[in-house]
Amino acid sequence: MKAIVIHAAKDLRVEEWDMQEPGPGQALVELNTGGICGSDLHYYNHGGFGVVRLKEPMILGHEVSGTVKALGEGTAGLDIGDLVAVSPSRPCGHCRYCQLGLQNQCENMRFYGSAMPFPHIQGAFRQHLTVDATQCVKANGLTTVEAAMAEPLSVCLHATRRAGELLGRRVLVTGSGPIGVLCVLAARAAGATEIVVTDLSDQALAMAERVGADRVINTAQNRDALESYSSGKGYFDVLYECSGAASALAGAIPALRPRAVVVQLGLGGDMTLPVQAMTVKEIDLRGSFRFHEEFGTAVRLMQNGAVDVKPLITHSIGFQEAKEAFDLASDRSRAMKVQLNFAG
Amino acid sequence: MKAIVIHAAKDLRVEEWDMQEPGPGQALVELNTGGICGSDLHYYNHGGFGVVRLKEPMILGHEVSGTVKALGEGTAGLDIGDLVAVSPSRPCGHCRYCQLGLQNQCENMRFYGSAMPFPHIQGAFRQHLTVDATQCVKANGLTTVEAAMAEPLSVCLHATRRAGELLGRRVLVTGSGPIGVLCVLAARAAGATEIVVTDLSDQALAMAERVGADRVINTAQNRDALESYSSGKGYFDVLYECSGAASALAGAIPALRPRAVVVQLGLGGDMTLPVQAMTVKEIDLRGSFRFHEEFGTAVRLMQNGAVDVKPLITHSIGFQEAKEAFDLASDRSRAMKVQLNFAG
Amino acid sequence: MKAIVIHAAKDLRVEEWDMQEPGPGQALVELNTGGICGSDLHYYNHGGFGVVRLKEPMILGHEVSGTVKALGEGTAGLDIGDLVAVSPSRPCGHCRYCQLGLQNQCENMRFYGSAMPFPHIQGAFRQHLTVDATQCVKANGLTTVEAAMAEPLSVCLHATRRAGELLGRRVLVTGSGPIGVLCVLAARAAGATEIVVTDLSDQALAMAERVGADRVINTAQNRDALESYSSGKGYFDVLYECSGAASALAGAIPALRPRAVVVQLGLGGDMTLPVQAMTVKEIDLRGSFRFHEEFGTAVRLMQNGAVDVKPLITHSIGFQEAKEAFDLASDRSRAMKVQLNFAG
Amino acid sequence: MKAIVIHAAKDLRVEEWDMQEPGPGQALVELNTGGICGSDLHYYNHGGFGVVRLKEPMILGHEVSGTVKALGEGTAGLDIGDLVAVSPSRPCGHCRYCQLGLQNQCENMRFYGSAMPFPHIQGAFRQHLTVDATQCVKANGLTTVEAAMAEPLSVCLHATRRAGELLGRRVLVTGSGPIGVLCVLAARAAGATEIVVTDLSDQALAMAERVGADRVINTAQNRDALESYSSGKGYFDVLYECSGAASALAGAIPALRPRAVVVQLGLGGDMTLPVQAMTVKEIDLRGSFRFHEEFGTAVRLMQNGAVDVKPLITHSIGFQEAKEAFDLASDRSRAMKVQLNFAG
Repeated sequence: MKAIVIHAAKDLRVEEWDMQEPGPGQALVELNTGGICGSDLHYYNHGGFGVVRLKEPMILGHEVSGTVKALGEGTAGLDIGDLVAVSPSRPCGHCRYCQLGLQNQCENMRFYGSAMPFPHIQGAFRQHLTVDATQCVKANGLTTVEAAMAEPLSVCLHATRRAGELLGRRVLVTGSGPIGVLCVLAARAAGATEIVVTDLSDQALAMAERVGADRVINTAQNRDALESYSSGKGYFDVLYECSGAASALAGAIPALRPRAVVVQLGLGGDMTLPVQAMTVKEIDLRGSFRFHEEFGTAVRLMQNGAVDVKPLITHSIGFQEAKEAFDLASDRSRAMKVQLNFAG
Repeated sequence: MKAIVIHAAKDLRVEEWDMQEPGPGQALVELNTGGICGSDLHYYNHGGFGVVRLKEPMILGHEVSGTVKALGEGTAGLDIGDLVAVSPSRPCGHCRYCQLGLQNQCENMRFYGSAMPFPHIQGAFRQHLTVDATQCVKANGLTTVEAAMAEPLSVCLHATRRAGELLGRRVLVTGSGPIGVLCVLAARAAGATEIVVTDLSDQALAMAERVGADRVINTAQNRDALESYSSGKGYFDVLYECSGAASALAGAIPALRPRAVVVQLGLGGDMTLPVQAMTVKEIDLRGSFRFHEEFGTAVRLMQNGAVDVKPLITHSIGFQEAKEAFDLASDRSRAMKVQLNFAG
Repeated sequence: MKAIVIHAAKDLRVEEWDMQEPGPGQALVELNTGGICGSDLHYYNHGGFGVVRLKEPMILGHEVSGTVKALGEGTAGLDIGDLVAVSPSRPCGHCRYCQLGLQNQCENMRFYGSAMPFPHIQGAFRQHLTVDATQCVKANGLTTVEAAMAEPLSVCLHATRRAGELLGRRVLVTGSGPIGVLCVLAARAAGATEIVVTDLSDQALAMAERVGADRVINTAQNRDALESYSSGKGYFDVLYECSGAASALAGAIPALRPRAVVVQLGLGGDMTLPVQAMTVKEIDLRGSFRFHEEFGTAVRLMQNGAVDVKPLITHSIGFQEAKEAFDLASDRSRAMKVQLNFAG
Repeated sequence: MKAIVIHAAKDLRVEEWDMQEPGPGQALVELNTGGICGSDLHYYNHGGFGVVRLKEPMILGHEVSGTVKALGEGTAGLDIGDLVAVSPSRPCGHCRYCQLGLQNQCENMRFYGSAMPFPHIQGAFRQHLTVDATQCVKANGLTTVEAAMAEPLSVCLHATRRAGELLGRRVLVTGSGPIGVLCVLAARAAGATEIVVTDLSDQALAMAERVGADRVINTAQNRDALESYSSGKGYFDVLYECSGAASALAGAIPALRPRAVVVQLGLGGDMTLPVQAMTVKEIDLRGSFRFHEEFGTAVRLMQNGAVDVKPLITHSIGFQEAKEAFDLASDRSRAMKVQLNFAG
């Protein structure tokens, strides 16, 4: 079968790779769709990020859906032919954090397409993938294109749980990439009544508006726009920080009310922050990383219509044109979410 | 002006009552719509409930909307002609519980239409009502009929906050009267992915289904229907108990998973409960009573389309036919929510 | 080796039982001390409780400490000769609740001395016990008598976690048996500033006072004593209900402030409760059952002096006189905690 | 009467100031003891800190105790002659945050000795102080010297509440000044079982050890000492950051376990932090500022012996020698907590 393998920065190849038969408790999935994520782009453009660097060829990808083609024993609940969203989260189940219910913090996590341990954890951009049945969530009623959005939506649902109470809350989102836009949808699904989004790009903000943000602000053009929210002691109850830019977080602090919650999703290395102002206001800065049980919730919220991810998917590119797809996805002015069509 | 006054059980009169000019910080509201609540019906049918008994004539009603007709000084933000939902919650602001942010537990609460203190707190079923401007929430974009639903919806939003995390949760609602049905809508607005409702009446359950319950169960006809959720250690994460019937709560315990949350809204006096089973499963039974800041949230959720209350309003009766309206509202087989049209 | 085996109500025998060699990850512990718990007494006096009934002979006991005598491979951290407290909590680690971090709710729990599954889970009152090394907590600096109190103290620490914030809180404890008295110690260790205890027995209350309760009330002699706490909207922030008596819980409700937390530890079957009053005050009734990670905390709190359990241990009886020990422990007027001395 | 007034950096004067008669609900307190706080020292040494600058002469001080000398009407519960700790926290009671129960975030706070609003809020280092009776907590059984520690202890109790669950937790404290040392006592009072403290000064660390820290680490001498806690995914559950130094916080991150809570008390302006590492571990950085209801708890915990603050008070200096006292308090190598003796 074919797989999309990164060898070094900009050296992306479609290669032959071996298939694996499903064992007990496993399913063989023929993948249909794979979304390109920001971390995939870091490997593609830079060979990694921070201390995470490619040391051997690695299959990319972790946002995938497909069709069940074969089943091992002990996979009741799955049938051949099922459309499934495949969770890339594979915690060990045994370590201290798994036993605390914090599977996303597993000490032995094998998340698809990660260069962090060595040997690397090979990714999911391949034509056939043998997975644990527990990684599969049936996606009846969804398109394969939507099912492949379960993963990034899960990231935002996990962040929403980290945020705490959203019902009736005022929400600010900094950064209107795919994660920021999905946070708009997630916050709305949890009952937020006012959602404002900032970014430096009008194209990005247009998508936030399209999925229902109450207001969007281009902070490149309108540096003082958040000031109207900063009188008294601030306005917003929750900030989803999706940019990874210290300026976005620091600039938002005056607009947050005392005891506001900042959920940090953006990964931007070190940041210089106004910690004194945050302390005086008793702001709560909470990291949010990946997800676990939220994967099933993501599928169900798309199924019942509470979340519609379709507007985000701006491009679908054939599997053979992976390099073109990665270049397109790297250009924020042209693309929001680029997906690979595995049949293409 | 006219007011709807209860003198004793079944003795309901439309009477003349004095109007009051708005002082500083106050608004005079011409009421348009008033919903009849279960507590109004208790006064009407039984002269009270439990230890709460009528001791003098009392204007009924606390679910009202209207139009601003006059404004005192210091009411910036309100304009004459505004459609407003009027909150019946009037805490003192000074007592221990107000200072803890628990205004619904105010020691000196003056909630419209309550016989609990003496003299009684006169209610809101009157043609003109002078209120504090802070009780008014502008309801632009809503009908007056919807605006009058802000109060019972607030009760259910408060219960939803008491329930804790709803996003992706499985919810059971026992009792499909107006509060139970609004709990379906509130739970959905907070992200619940599966909602099952039980009642003894098919008519009541039909409404739950209409507003989006995933399944309804008539436990009069199908006593064992909850058993399918009771294998293993149970299924539901949250129960909204809206019936006030011990049998409903006790019957639901096996269907709840360990650490499930029961939000108790129904007021049914003493109840004999399987406390040992609840303890072993570490069930969390939380009372929920009235609301406070959720009133504004209720209006906003109706405005942004997250909650549609219109299907619940089965009848609108003219103010002069109050007695007929109360009789109709007392018959669960005929009516869900009965509202009075003050122009009628 | 010898074991203490219950055959039927009042039929308690000291019998020969087979020893088991420790396998990998296991330790052989020579037990020194075993405390008699209320559930042991139910089997002894009544052959069970509620639906839990003896169906075959069962070794009793789950509050034990001893000395490590032999170790299998993979038991780093334990040494032969160590005094250890042995946790009776043996969750499976794999089920849904273990994976949520709720090991005390494990679907496959094998808690020592439980007749609930069949075959029964044999208990720990035997001279030698082969355990998983993870069940052992080193008890350096404690006496064996104290180490055997880790288990009931864990129950009360778990309840304290269920209670939420205790620092500076006012606490009521209903029921002054061993669990009630340990709840006094646990609440104090978590920062409670005022602790009042009620019971029907002066002897029991004397022990609560001895370990530091600020006030004790004999509600048999002084039925109205809690009334002084019931003016306004009540007084206590937290109730530990350790009696399992509906009258104790119902009688305490007026003395609780709105939003108070009741932690229910007592197992008393069905209870008739003033649910309406609890709902109006938004009381939070939380079941608390067993414990898991709190076992290690129990040992550490005894080691650092934050909790002193020694006053509770009123009797130490030789292993061979088990029947006498069980009779004594059944008499609340004579005994608080009765322990078996395995060397005796 | 005399007061201690700061005019500019290093310009501290003991001056005459007018007394005020107590009105209704007020008490006149003859002050006995006043502790010098870090913020007092900022005004004394630098004329302010950050954007907070002296613009007019201001009485310093907010850690005071004294004796009730006269009472206005409506002060039931207080008697002339009572020793009282006086809370410097004077929220308005009316603003949004007071009504949310967040009085420490009051929009109109009048905290003694603050240059933030203009005119400044005059402080409490004066021989007589007229206060609201609600600011007084009776300190029977304490010395006046202990009673004057209620304020800084309250800061640490508030931080402890912000930290969430402490029972059985592993705690790291960075910065062993008076606030760091009081955090050791507060964490212990809330049930922490292991407490490690870091600082750059052996003298400061000696005090932490004296009040019960399990281990102290001089990170100036032993830069890698925290590494032993950094294997796997880290060790500590809670960090109290009391230094305000970015290096202390950043250096501690590897030693924190995933989902650890950092309570930030130190006020150090902007900080450059490893936000990416904090995000991946889902660390929760919570600001903690001042206190409100914890003031009464502080007095009670000293009264019942759960917290002993006496070791911290290294110096008591006469009121007339205020300048000497401020110089001494500014020298960490010589002093921990310096108090003024108002009789001196």
